[in-house]
Amino acid sequence: MMQVKGIRSISPYVPGEQPNFSDMIKINTNENAYPPSPAVLDTLKHFDGKSLSRYSSISNQKLKEALAKKYHLQSNQFVIGNGSDEILAFCMLAFFNSKEPILFPDITYGFYKVWADLFHIPYQEVPLKQDFRINFEDYNRFNGGILIPNPNAPTGIYEESPTIETLLKNNSDSVVIIDEAYIDFGGVSVIPLIEKYPNLVVVHTFSKSRSLAGLRIGYAISNPNLIQVLESIKSSFNPYSVDTLSEELSVSAVESQTYYLEINQKIQHTRELFAHKLNQLGFVVLPSKTNFVLTTHPKADMQALFEFLNEQHVFVRFFPTNKRLEQFFRISIGTDQEMLRVTQILEQFLAK
Amino acid sequence: MMQVKGIRSISPYVPGEQPNFSDMIKINTNENAYPPSPAVLDTLKHFDGKSLSRYSSISNQKLKEALAKKYHLQSNQFVIGNGSDEILAFCMLAFFNSKEPILFPDITYGFYKVWADLFHIPYQEVPLKQDFRINFEDYNRFNGGILIPNPNAPTGIYEESPTIETLLKNNSDSVVIIDEAYIDFGGVSVIPLIEKYPNLVVVHTFSKSRSLAGLRIGYAISNPNLIQVLESIKSSFNPYSVDTLSEELSVSAVESQTYYLEINQKIQHTRELFAHKLNQLGFVVLPSKTNFVLTTHPKADMQALFEFLNEQHVFVRFFPTNKRLEQFFRISIGTDQEMLRVTQILEQFLAK
Repeated sequence: MMQVKGIRSISPYVPGEQPNFSDMIKINTNENAYPPSPAVLDTLKHFDGKSLSRYSSISNQKLKEALAKKYHLQSNQFVIGNGSDEILAFCMLAFFNSKEPILFPDITYGFYKVWADLFHIPYQEVPLKQDFRINFEDYNRFNGGILIPNPNAPTGIYEESPTIETLLKNNSDSVVIIDEAYIDFGGVSVIPLIEKYPNLVVVHTFSKSRSLAGLRIGYAISNPNLIQVLESIKSSFNPYSVDTLSEELSVSAVESQTYYLEINQKIQHTRELFAHKLNQLGFVVLPSKTNFVLTTHPKADMQALFEFLNEQHVFVRFFPTNKRLEQFFRISIGTDQEMLRVTQILEQFLAK
Repeated sequence: MMQVKGIRSISPYVPGEQPNFSDMIKINTNENAYPPSPAVLDTLKHFDGKSLSRYSSISNQKLKEALAKKYHLQSNQFVIGNGSDEILAFCMLAFFNSKEPILFPDITYGFYKVWADLFHIPYQEVPLKQDFRINFEDYNRFNGGILIPNPNAPTGIYEESPTIETLLKNNSDSVVIIDEAYIDFGGVSVIPLIEKYPNLVVVHTFSKSRSLAGLRIGYAISNPNLIQVLESIKSSFNPYSVDTLSEELSVSAVESQTYYLEINQKIQHTRELFAHKLNQLGFVVLPSKTNFVLTTHPKADMQALFEFLNEQHVFVRFFPTNKRLEQFFRISIGTDQEMLRVTQILEQFLAK
């Protein structure tokens, strides 16, 4: 193909599409149904653009302190990155350097595998159980590290803290990363376990519950030792990856707890209503503690339904190339009005 | 140290300090002396923060089209990243995968070595000549790729296009990356050579000439084949690394050509005045086509001068750990008033 040497060939992650219609219902990438907090919008309005000629902060101390205050931790227990994607990539480079394979579920965030390939990290995908739950017993084997999303995506299924604690105990010589991207939609974070387990790293994002997917902020929480390794990796890759505007606005988001609690409870309420309605229509819905549901209809042609939805500018995530998921939709929870409209369209299709 | 396995140990890049005094003259990280263009500030003022709940663009098509128009190229000849640091890291992952060592100057941007270490890429540092110029003849050897900044940093020395063209010809089976971070301060870009040499990748940043260091935008320009490999790496690492605000503001920056031409010519004018004055004071100044100068005074105690400047809140870059540079300062070009003040302080020190 190329006459020059050294060119890498790799299969990248394929994210959800980014359609752009004024009348669309975009529920395919788990964005928050509501805007960022008024305080965030206010900070943006008063931001002095002239300061952008200067480099952004490397330490992100201001955001770390806001987070430390919120979680009752120290600022040296946080590292900030350009979305949790960057943080997870840094974790792979920082913690998964042994020769044993790392472990993660076979049905999970599709990016884990891509990073492992990119960095030549050996891995094993551990099959989910028949009911789509994580099979924690299967993680009691020789491994170079463990990566578990809780709640898992795209299943939406949440595991309680004691289950994670057993995993940490059984794998005390490996770093265990718990990716809590969706934890604020009904789950309880394992952050309190950080003091007890020196092998635990928790990863969070501002893209879901903080309604700031367009701003690119994520962070890891751990003990200062592991955080320092992550900081070294960040400083060896792209030390300024968090821009000045993003850090300022994120601080305001952390300080808007009441607002975010409210909108995220509203999303959970809408999720319950929507799941209930789906059940009534004959859909099977996996139990979700996220801002999406994984669902299928035993009697419907899901491919035809997907196309029917698209025609009406309703965009859900469909996984036609994944054997166990090929009949499922992952539907993000929008506003009540949006989900009502979606329900109507589903009813319309099923009535045909 | 740690009881958990797989932990990476690495020496990160050490950037210039980020002091913060209201009266300081910060000329240690080559930031632009002037604010972003009025159009950029205006775009910021009118940006709808509510849109931040949605993911940023993966394709960055809007910015690519603005750049394509400016450089008379196609949009598929660009890849956009979170600063040229991220772009350069992607280049290392994308193009430097052969077993031969990659080559770059021994005195250059300190990050090249850090990325090579991070990604386990073998490398050789090619010594600069006695006069601090790049010794291009030394690059005619077996290699897995070449990385040359033009102008070079921290020397500031620029090499003309025919020199780069010979390098490209002599290394047609390796990817040659020309890092043009400082090209807009008096040099001429080798972008026109892209059509002719399929092994050429040019890297630019918005941090220097576009006065947007705090916004984190960089890009690579090449043929569509190599750009597609870079896009695959980006999509395998962090596909959304350019946030929505950064892309919008950068488009306005690209469209503000007249403003940026003016401020960057002003910086070159100030550089000439400042270098002239330094010469008068007995300093040796390397010929610069950047927004900084590398300089030393044969009779001054540079360590003492560095401390004297710091006491007066003037921050320049000093390289006390680098043998050939240990007597040198890299001084960014600020405004005329700032450089006048710096000159006065230098005079004060030398008069002692």
